[in-house]
Amino acid sequence: MSRYAYVNGRYVPHGRAQVHIEDRGYQFADGIYEVVAVRHGRLVDEGPHLDRLDRSLAEMRMAAPMARAPLRHAMREVIRRNRVADGIVYMQVTRGAAPREHAFPKAAKPALVITAKRLLPKFAQMEKGVSVITLPDIRWKRRDIKTVNLTANVLAKQQAVEAGAFDAWLVDEGGMVSEGTASNAWIVTKDKELVTHTPDYRILNGITRLSVRALAETEGYRFVERPFSLAEAQAAAEAFITGTTAWVTPVIAIDKKQVGDGKPGPLTRALQRLYATYADNPA
Amino acid sequence: MSRYAYVNGRYVPHGRAQVHIEDRGYQFADGIYEVVAVRHGRLVDEGPHLDRLDRSLAEMRMAAPMARAPLRHAMREVIRRNRVADGIVYMQVTRGAAPREHAFPKAAKPALVITAKRLLPKFAQMEKGVSVITLPDIRWKRRDIKTVNLTANVLAKQQAVEAGAFDAWLVDEGGMVSEGTASNAWIVTKDKELVTHTPDYRILNGITRLSVRALAETEGYRFVERPFSLAEAQAAAEAFITGTTAWVTPVIAIDKKQVGDGKPGPLTRALQRLYATYADNPA
Repeated sequence: MSRYAYVNGRYVPHGRAQVHIEDRGYQFADGIYEVVAVRHGRLVDEGPHLDRLDRSLAEMRMAAPMARAPLRHAMREVIRRNRVADGIVYMQVTRGAAPREHAFPKAAKPALVITAKRLLPKFAQMEKGVSVITLPDIRWKRRDIKTVNLTANVLAKQQAVEAGAFDAWLVDEGGMVSEGTASNAWIVTKDKELVTHTPDYRILNGITRLSVRALAETEGYRFVERPFSLAEAQAAAEAFITGTTAWVTPVIAIDKKQVGDGKPGPLTRALQRLYATYADNPA
Repeated sequence: MSRYAYVNGRYVPHGRAQVHIEDRGYQFADGIYEVVAVRHGRLVDEGPHLDRLDRSLAEMRMAAPMARAPLRHAMREVIRRNRVADGIVYMQVTRGAAPREHAFPKAAKPALVITAKRLLPKFAQMEKGVSVITLPDIRWKRRDIKTVNLTANVLAKQQAVEAGAFDAWLVDEGGMVSEGTASNAWIVTKDKELVTHTPDYRILNGITRLSVRALAETEGYRFVERPFSLAEAQAAAEAFITGTTAWVTPVIAIDKKQVGDGKPGPLTRALQRLYATYADNPA
């Protein structure tokens, strides 16, 4: 099957989808992105993802490449042309192409790329759970903006993979776990309290994180947003991650130390089921 | 005049010089770069720049796109095709194009882009000096690698420009000045000691910084590498920056507070002359 991408106003074959070498995304990581899940042909949490895209643009002081209605249309067109029923749509907006100078260009137009690909939910991984290692969080201090400034995430993820783990949980100078390289980190304390990091400059406020939080609140689960330490995570009853493609994935070991009894915990399983139902029936 | 760029093995008109949308430089800031000055048709400090390119590649665990001899040839060919006598040559290497996954791709080939443009040394600015503001240094913790992970630098430079300053000096959590957004920061203490930050993970070890250091040592100037505070900078006798295009540029005000008597200082002037002579007669 041929794949197609949307690039600055045109639908082009994926293999020939290109941007200029002086696009500021390429030279300065001067861009932002979103990844939205497609489930049974429908977008999961489209509204919150587009709201966050707007927030990232505002924080970066970048103009939107187009209004929301045509953007939603373009997303759907890319999904349709790539015949994606289950998968993801990826959108990237950069400050555009301009002669290389650090300061914002006066005349550049924001550049927009949209791709889509098939990807089934990773049910086996969700069933079994994953292990993570921990690494120092050396990223910049505006992780709340979903920029393509992902060098540190790439290096950490690679270290995790080479260590035989699924991902790395990043630990800040104070010994607190901020998040994974592309997902939010959660624990369940021994007295059944759900804990995940405060949504400040230190983490990306994940859309799946927000949906899982809402589901937990609806169920009446006890929930608190605060930083937690690595020691607390290793001593927790349960641990899991949330993310656009990870959904709710149990974490069964941290730095090779078993979490709880080394099996996905009951509260994790309950949230996993709730989220799967939610993703299967998006609003 | 038409401009040309080298892109992955081909010399192409600048306007049509493109990279794939899944080049990891575009999606992950997974790439590094160098800017080398061209003066009177010759490359300034080519060897040290290419050594640093190799170091950046090694730290990022990226393969070199080609050996040094053909790379030097390609640089010269881009300079020649663009008829650059005075200017810069820009080289960017990324981990290459691959389906988007954070971990290193197994099969991607490093991508190489080379551009060149005419640019005269900014003699008027060097004569008059510049002012800087200060901003918190929110960048990642591996600034010693010359990556395209420049989001924070872009935002800081833009703030400086909007404040009517030439650049921002970035101040870390401990109150120490690390460097500018694209240059190294120096002060001259009241007892004529040259001070610039220790070359560790907190700064980029500038090639012009190294050449100026060598010139200062040859002249017998007192020189020390250590972090210095903002207060110390504002109380200094002189201040200046070094960089590939800035050469040695006096800093005459920091956060609107005059440095010394608000004019370029004598030691700054001496180093400026030494460096100009050096750049005019590259090894």
